[in-house]
Amino acid sequence: MAQRFDWITFLSDYGLDDVFVGVCKGVMACVAPQVRVIDICHLVAPQDVVQGATVFAAAMPYLPPAVHLGLVDPMQATVSRGVVVAANGSLLVGPDNGVLSKAWAALGGATAAYEIRNTELELDTPSRTFRGRDVFAPVAAHLAAGTPPDTVGPAVELATLTVLKARAAMIDDDHVHGEVLNVDHFGNLALNVARADLEAAGMSLGDTVELRCAGRTMTVPFTMTYGDVPRGRVALCEDSFRAVQVSVNLGHAARTLRVSRGDPMVISRIAQPAGTRSGG
Amino acid sequence: MAQRFDWITFLSDYGLDDVFVGVCKGVMACVAPQVRVIDICHLVAPQDVVQGATVFAAAMPYLPPAVHLGLVDPMQATVSRGVVVAANGSLLVGPDNGVLSKAWAALGGATAAYEIRNTELELDTPSRTFRGRDVFAPVAAHLAAGTPPDTVGPAVELATLTVLKARAAMIDDDHVHGEVLNVDHFGNLALNVARADLEAAGMSLGDTVELRCAGRTMTVPFTMTYGDVPRGRVALCEDSFRAVQVSVNLGHAARTLRVSRGDPMVISRIAQPAGTRSGG
Amino acid sequence: MAQRFDWITFLSDYGLDDVFVGVCKGVMACVAPQVRVIDICHLVAPQDVVQGATVFAAAMPYLPPAVHLGLVDPMQATVSRGVVVAANGSLLVGPDNGVLSKAWAALGGATAAYEIRNTELELDTPSRTFRGRDVFAPVAAHLAAGTPPDTVGPAVELATLTVLKARAAMIDDDHVHGEVLNVDHFGNLALNVARADLEAAGMSLGDTVELRCAGRTMTVPFTMTYGDVPRGRVALCEDSFRAVQVSVNLGHAARTLRVSRGDPMVISRIAQPAGTRSGG
Repeated sequence: MAQRFDWITFLSDYGLDDVFVGVCKGVMACVAPQVRVIDICHLVAPQDVVQGATVFAAAMPYLPPAVHLGLVDPMQATVSRGVVVAANGSLLVGPDNGVLSKAWAALGGATAAYEIRNTELELDTPSRTFRGRDVFAPVAAHLAAGTPPDTVGPAVELATLTVLKARAAMIDDDHVHGEVLNVDHFGNLALNVARADLEAAGMSLGDTVELRCAGRTMTVPFTMTYGDVPRGRVALCEDSFRAVQVSVNLGHAARTLRVSRGDPMVISRIAQPAGTRSGG
Repeated sequence: MAQRFDWITFLSDYGLDDVFVGVCKGVMACVAPQVRVIDICHLVAPQDVVQGATVFAAAMPYLPPAVHLGLVDPMQATVSRGVVVAANGSLLVGPDNGVLSKAWAALGGATAAYEIRNTELELDTPSRTFRGRDVFAPVAAHLAAGTPPDTVGPAVELATLTVLKARAAMIDDDHVHGEVLNVDHFGNLALNVARADLEAAGMSLGDTVELRCAGRTMTVPFTMTYGDVPRGRVALCEDSFRAVQVSVNLGHAARTLRVSRGDPMVISRIAQPAGTRSGG
Repeated sequence: MAQRFDWITFLSDYGLDDVFVGVCKGVMACVAPQVRVIDICHLVAPQDVVQGATVFAAAMPYLPPAVHLGLVDPMQATVSRGVVVAANGSLLVGPDNGVLSKAWAALGGATAAYEIRNTELELDTPSRTFRGRDVFAPVAAHLAAGTPPDTVGPAVELATLTVLKARAAMIDDDHVHGEVLNVDHFGNLALNVARADLEAAGMSLGDTVELRCAGRTMTVPFTMTYGDVPRGRVALCEDSFRAVQVSVNLGHAARTLRVSRGDPMVISRIAQPAGTRSGG
């Protein structure tokens, strides 16, 4: 028995200054009028597969079971095949260029995948440059309406799916080499660093630590939230998606520190002067 | 009997370049799948409670009975309590920092309020920094699905709710001291000045008046609409929300006059030369 | 028997930094709660009727039968009448200033039109400056709910409707004078040039052609898609809406070439050196 979905969630780099998103929704409305669409974000930087993958995955735990449509699809010499990936009761639809790979990991891992080849599910006259409208949107809508995933095309070996690997933070004695994974709307910097990494380098919540980035060195508190420091001050804290972030309370950390996504950041333990140790 | 709502309206400073809005909608879809969301605006300037309150209130008269979710929630030393406020058959949900206060006034005044304390209505693992997703969105969805408002927590004395007071315009003989309350998408300047204020200072529709702002003085007509002046000319007129505004026909007043929200503006009556008076 | 519509599609220059779009949706929800809205685009450049008309028309072939609401409505000395235009089973609603004219052409031509005069379908206290909220949104919702189009007001002679004429490309022996019709979110330049125009001037797919714009001359390939050239290179190709476009693969053509909508562009055949001709 075919599964149906009430929801399509939709992430893309299509922007909002154009009709691309609306056109895809029109196509979905024609194919599956009963389905409702939740926009996750359409302002992923143009053709930035890594950013798209990162933020789509961050959203996953909070979304209902759905067809999750993730469209960041730069045209390369070789075009990525289109795929449908099953994970934890949801279906992910998009190009096999990695944009979906962090999302299925966030859902617990891919359990099946199919290559989109069945042209009967596509629009009549597919353009070669707008696969979102001509292929991915109608396929997503057909899936939501109950078309079984294996109808889209042949099964794909899971091991052949493109996976983006996050560069891991490196722990080196008393410091951690990380990088900025994402800058959010408020300018907070999400790092590829977990609280456990900091603890492995000897830093604990409540410590003052050293932060090096963009040619500057500063000492900042490692606090529970950015609200624990005064207005305008930098803090290292845990973000709402459980990664370590750098924030400026009531400010914009990316502008204050002049860093962008991909920039390196080193967090170091500060040796405590002997006199301050308990029992010292 | 519990009241249910078909609609949640949603205003925030979450931006559209991030997944925050989509994640909140995902949470609401999980809790109350039948409810539909109307986005009011998500580009309130980050952490700008006054702007959020002003534009949310302007929208109120045109919205259906709903759960109105207003999320501009800067983290301060002391975090604002979360509240549900009943007004004219609708429920307002958000932080008690004033962001809802103009909205309930626009609806005719608050009739009951409750502090959000019932953690059973929240997500399992609330972050301390993203209350929109973890507290306010699920509470709004539960309310829309029929959970009675007094289930969220203890009743709040209405007199203890945080209220933003608009600075009133000051009438001084033949001139009015006002300020720019809001700059809209087209660059029109909404003032904290009513037509009655201008009339109290002796200015009538059709008069030419003097406008002082940003170090400049100019004479402009006080017209019915900005369409009554030629292209590119400044006009003082009544806006579509019944406040006095400064506009440039087919132009952008904020850029032309180089003023922003909060800037002062003085509007003065121009003495009519004796010869121009009727019967003079 | 009155026709009902499940969908209202909505394009405007209202922006997303303001409550205008949300307020119009609130009005529609009050009048016709069962109707669903598809946002086509709200970031049309302020008061730019030509851009609005162009992109609304491009979206039309992909939308379900609907009430299509197109609101780019600059206030002029004479305000455009509001109209409802029937085309191919859909109804278009907006000002009669041309913003709808390319859309009904894309749908196969207008078959009936009515002037909006019936104030019973409008909000109680229409502002003179926000007709979207006070007139067009409620009329669109009434039409979607089944109010027959001839209820809005008197029939309009189709020949009196305002039509925007696209400037046609000019073919001059071995070159084509065109102009930039639209710049999309990725910076691609849509031209008022069809592939047939290029062929009429002796240029074929696969040729290298000469492009002149913004004071520069360059030679570029006329390819099937922009993916056929290396990263960062300019290509002339067919866009996903079947017009000829200028693109930079994995880049932003408008910024690279420093051209904007309305700018002229000349495409010329390059004489093939005798030695390169087959059989030469």
